Amino acid sequence: MSLETARTEYLNVDDVRFAFRRLGPTAGTPLILLQHFTGTMDAWDPAVADGLAATRPVIAFNNLGIGTSTGRTPDTVEQMAADAGTFIRGLGLSKVDLVGFSLGGMLAQVLAMQHPSLIRKIVIAGAAPRGGEEHLLAVVEDAFAQGAPDVRLPLFFTPSEKSQRAGQAFVARATARTQDRDPDSGDDVSVPQAKAIIGWCAVKDEGDTTLRAIAQPALIVHGSDDTMFPSINAYNMFKAMKNAQFVLYPDSGHGAVFQYPETFVAHCHTFLDA
Amino acid sequence: MSLETARTEYLNVDDVRFAFRRLGPTAGTPLILLQHFTGTMDAWDPAVADGLAATRPVIAFNNLGIGTSTGRTPDTVEQMAADAGTFIRGLGLSKVDLVGFSLGGMLAQVLAMQHPSLIRKIVIAGAAPRGGEEHLLAVVEDAFAQGAPDVRLPLFFTPSEKSQRAGQAFVARATARTQDRDPDSGDDVSVPQAKAIIGWCAVKDEGDTTLRAIAQPALIVHGSDDTMFPSINAYNMFKAMKNAQFVLYPDSGHGAVFQYPETFVAHCHTFLDA
Repeated sequence: MSLETARTEYLNVDDVRFAFRRLGPTAGTPLILLQHFTGTMDAWDPAVADGLAATRPVIAFNNLGIGTSTGRTPDTVEQMAADAGTFIRGLGLSKVDLVGFSLGGMLAQVLAMQHPSLIRKIVIAGAAPRGGEEHLLAVVEDAFAQGAPDVRLPLFFTPSEKSQRAGQAFVARATARTQDRDPDSGDDVSVPQAKAIIGWCAVKDEGDTTLRAIAQPALIVHGSDDTMFPSINAYNMFKAMKNAQFVLYPDSGHGAVFQYPETFVAHCHTFLDA
Repeated sequence: MSLETARTEYLNVDDVRFAFRRLGPTAGTPLILLQHFTGTMDAWDPAVADGLAATRPVIAFNNLGIGTSTGRTPDTVEQMAADAGTFIRGLGLSKVDLVGFSLGGMLAQVLAMQHPSLIRKIVIAGAAPRGGEEHLLAVVEDAFAQGAPDVRLPLFFTPSEKSQRAGQAFVARATARTQDRDPDSGDDVSVPQAKAIIGWCAVKDEGDTTLRAIAQPALIVHGSDDTMFPSINAYNMFKAMKNAQFVLYPDSGHGAVFQYPETFVAHCHTFLDA
């Protein structure tokens, strides 16, 4: 079962419904994917999701208000993390790993801090710490202004020929699914999510209390030239955490993990299997 | 064949003789190990050397003046790199990968720059760039003053219980070989090698001309708390190079790659196989 073909399942918890898809084997610690700003399940790179699912159960889902999940998109990282926790526990899972990309990497930090026994290990890709430097609106606005065939080409990749070529391959992979695709996100998603990201970065976390409270092993992965969340954020996260590995990829932007999917998958397996 | 049991071979070039040992399969791009300050072939961690040799030919050797190699230890990184190049070409090899640790990582930079067709990929572990920050003599002096059972415990590992435990396991692995061990290095090695390291770091390389001249893919690996060559050196190397990956390990010192040998070996294979 691959990201391109997995059927959409639904989980009802109280009055809300989460859409999700399962990939990979059933045995092993499940790996939950936490998605980026405005991203649905279909915005994941199949090369990443399927690569991770080669040897472990992987679950992609839409948080509340996204795609065919019901509910409203909240405007804080904390509430999004709480909703993700509701989803994970709702599936009956008692121990999971997380891969969070961008906004999803912020959720991963909160979940790891708040749920030391539920969350085993976290991968934080292309994210910022609480109080970190962000250029979300400027970078998104600039990317849309470029009129690229897919806004993710300028948003996730550097201007170099090599990075743009990798970007085109990513876009082809991420649009391969034709059946049962999630509807794209609108303003009802982007507005509160932007508020959540900006709010997360707006207030300095003196003494890095969030990062220092995370006892689980973490893998921080970042692009050399991420314009949305500069790589120095990620370096500072590494320095503040007790047990983090840090990986940077060359000539890469916010979507570094989609530029080097095989390498990223290998790094995740090495980290998660250790 | 493992590092603990491989027989020592000799290569004569003109009036000098290099001692070396081969591990692993014969097919594939050979990986040459470039050793640290005062280190002989037997100072490599078998968990690293044998792990790398699981799927590729690995060659450890003693550069001139070290162990049972003849000749004099030169006092510049450039001459050591030239001698290593003589050894590699003397074996009849036309394409190799390098793993250089500490001083060896400096040789790797020079070799990659000077021999773009001979050197395919380089791993730079625990090293400094030309003009980088170094605290060699202070750190070595402090380590010896601690009177540890093995000076590499304070020199290569952090004071944490976990790091020291990993250090003891490393020392046990690195002293397992009893037959045909290299003689330890004396002042005739340490004095010129210290001069070479200090000289390499003493002169700023304005514009990072050495690093920028390296076109080959590079993997930079460093410990979070390397007291000899601070991790910011490694981050700056990453930023200056065209095509480098950067990996940092948690709670680790100068010997980070011996603290996490399985992870380091996995990262090397991922990088070298990409």
